Amino acid sequence: MRVDGVVRRSIQVAADGRSVEIVDQTLLPHGFVTRELRSLADAAEAIRSMRVRGAPLIGATAAYGVALQMCDEPSDASLQRAIEELLATRPTAVNLRWALDEMRRALRDVPPAARNARAYERAAEICEEDVENCRRIGEHGFRLIEALRERRAERGPLNVLTHCNAGWLATVDWGTALAPVYLAHDRGIPVHVWVDETRPRNQGASLTAWELGQHGVPHTVIADNAGGHLMQRGKVDLCITGSDRTTSTGDVCNKIGTYLKALAAHDNAIPFYAALPSSSIDWTLADGIAEIPIEERDGSELRCVRGRTTAGDMAEVVVLPAESPVANPAFDVTPARLVTGLITERGVCEATRAGIAGLHPERAGRASEP
Amino acid sequence: MRVDGVVRRSIQVAADGRSVEIVDQTLLPHGFVTRELRSLADAAEAIRSMRVRGAPLIGATAAYGVALQMCDEPSDASLQRAIEELLATRPTAVNLRWALDEMRRALRDVPPAARNARAYERAAEICEEDVENCRRIGEHGFRLIEALRERRAERGPLNVLTHCNAGWLATVDWGTALAPVYLAHDRGIPVHVWVDETRPRNQGASLTAWELGQHGVPHTVIADNAGGHLMQRGKVDLCITGSDRTTSTGDVCNKIGTYLKALAAHDNAIPFYAALPSSSIDWTLADGIAEIPIEERDGSELRCVRGRTTAGDMAEVVVLPAESPVANPAFDVTPARLVTGLITERGVCEATRAGIAGLHPERAGRASEP
Repeated sequence: MRVDGVVRRSIQVAADGRSVEIVDQTLLPHGFVTRELRSLADAAEAIRSMRVRGAPLIGATAAYGVALQMCDEPSDASLQRAIEELLATRPTAVNLRWALDEMRRALRDVPPAARNARAYERAAEICEEDVENCRRIGEHGFRLIEALRERRAERGPLNVLTHCNAGWLATVDWGTALAPVYLAHDRGIPVHVWVDETRPRNQGASLTAWELGQHGVPHTVIADNAGGHLMQRGKVDLCITGSDRTTSTGDVCNKIGTYLKALAAHDNAIPFYAALPSSSIDWTLADGIAEIPIEERDGSELRCVRGRTTAGDMAEVVVLPAESPVANPAFDVTPARLVTGLITERGVCEATRAGIAGLHPERAGRASEP
Repeated sequence: MRVDGVVRRSIQVAADGRSVEIVDQTLLPHGFVTRELRSLADAAEAIRSMRVRGAPLIGATAAYGVALQMCDEPSDASLQRAIEELLATRPTAVNLRWALDEMRRALRDVPPAARNARAYERAAEICEEDVENCRRIGEHGFRLIEALRERRAERGPLNVLTHCNAGWLATVDWGTALAPVYLAHDRGIPVHVWVDETRPRNQGASLTAWELGQHGVPHTVIADNAGGHLMQRGKVDLCITGSDRTTSTGDVCNKIGTYLKALAAHDNAIPFYAALPSSSIDWTLADGIAEIPIEERDGSELRCVRGRTTAGDMAEVVVLPAESPVANPAFDVTPARLVTGLITERGVCEATRAGIAGLHPERAGRASEP
């Protein structure tokens, strides 16, 4: 990932070897500001207020949140409290639970005095694993893009539609949905990305558009409403989104509105892929619509829009009648039947129990184990 | 329609008997401001800048635009110029052309000296016809709501999802999609409306929510992305939208994003109706996707969001990176196969050539005549 041409990561240990530096994503695209997390409370706040977001980055931040707490107080009770506090920050992303389980496993049999060092070590490994997973997702997705481009009669760039932000800002580096796009662009395959605005938090407009711009990838921002129309008119060759949680049967939980794009892709015979690390597969679930809890976020996200005024200040404006109630579900579930395939670090598979199990043979017969 | 409890219309001749009073819809929901149109140029500007919008209200405003020009200069050349200027204001709504054709027919054989009076008379008739059409659409749609409510096992209100604004602000009174809702509410059938925000111009959030609130109809504003999720979870009983143009075969052109909601309704076996006056049926078209021109509006609609600051002023904030390009198609086409039926002033019909022809026998065999 690049910011003003400089290579960096979305989360990294600061120069003091203890604090954890994040990009405050609530200020993008208008300001690029990093913040240092110095305690468990800082990490929990950063996740809760969505200074960091995206399933893999939430997992990485939670891991460092445990590490920060182990600096302050390495007891069993403190470890337990850290895990509970972090687990409660966001209810949908399965990576959060996965990362915290990893931290618990890494630390529970370690004497308290050694937990601090081990915690930073394991958190760093989780980050490295994420970078490597994303790079592999990129390679597998790249081959899909390459194949589509070869089959395509028309000249001009391959048009990829994405929803929300599943780029490097959502992970430690590379991204999931955008990793194949970055690789294709870097390797000279012309790609153009339709970026869904992604109301109500506008992650597409403010994060995806910004990071594609920083990397020099051609893109166009559209209202969430526009994707179906563009697909009808043959202007989309491929959809790739991320996933916050995928069931063992291939149902994809992702940012609210993903389901609508999957319906439109299906209606227009356009391939629709979700790109995700295997860690976001929830092996305990078989029916995404019935079983995945959907976070209901504060109505102010819809009621108020934040942006830059003509004077250059940041301001928030109210766009609703004061007395009108609001509902704000943050995710939806795209049934597996609408998903062409899953792009994981292990390869591309069908969004079916058999397809997913085929890539994860160690899970065969253990599908119902939490 | 009611504003602060007072009955009024969205367009009416002012006390001077010449000027035409409109509600400036660009200022809603934060300010209720009326404006007087005093010339053809005022009328064209009001349509172009969307101070008035909604297919029927655009038609009514264009009719009065011709009348205002006939006050100033009633010659043949002036009539022709007025029609051409008004026709060029918005490319998609067929009512605009319909209303201008009506005005031409009413005036062409009238001596210039008598055109002024005849023009106001015909414009007033167009408005009365619209009110009567909407009232009838309301009655026919009311029976659908009543029937659905009777079949419904659950207690609680019937949940209607609508997109954009096809209420009384889009017509002269009553509305199209919302007319059945107002009638049901007034007659004691509990209804609740899910109001799509309708990016990028937020007509749902700023107009539909406001007018439902003024009338006391329970409603909840949602992001455009949320409708599919609510349908999956059984929280929508019925979708009703308006239509800017409907083909003779039942393809429905309406605000961008309508197609996505129709897909979701179809996927969840939820009835999806478009409510429209017969005047918005375009008898010359058989394939909406191939034949209906889609207006591309300025990117600033997506780039900037206007609203009320905490200080109470109106302000505009930029929500995109400055260098990111934007695409902004204003309408999409919902194929007839996704439309359960059309609610017109003549009754409810299937969205098929036969269904539409059945309600319009005078059109039988003349389907290709402009």
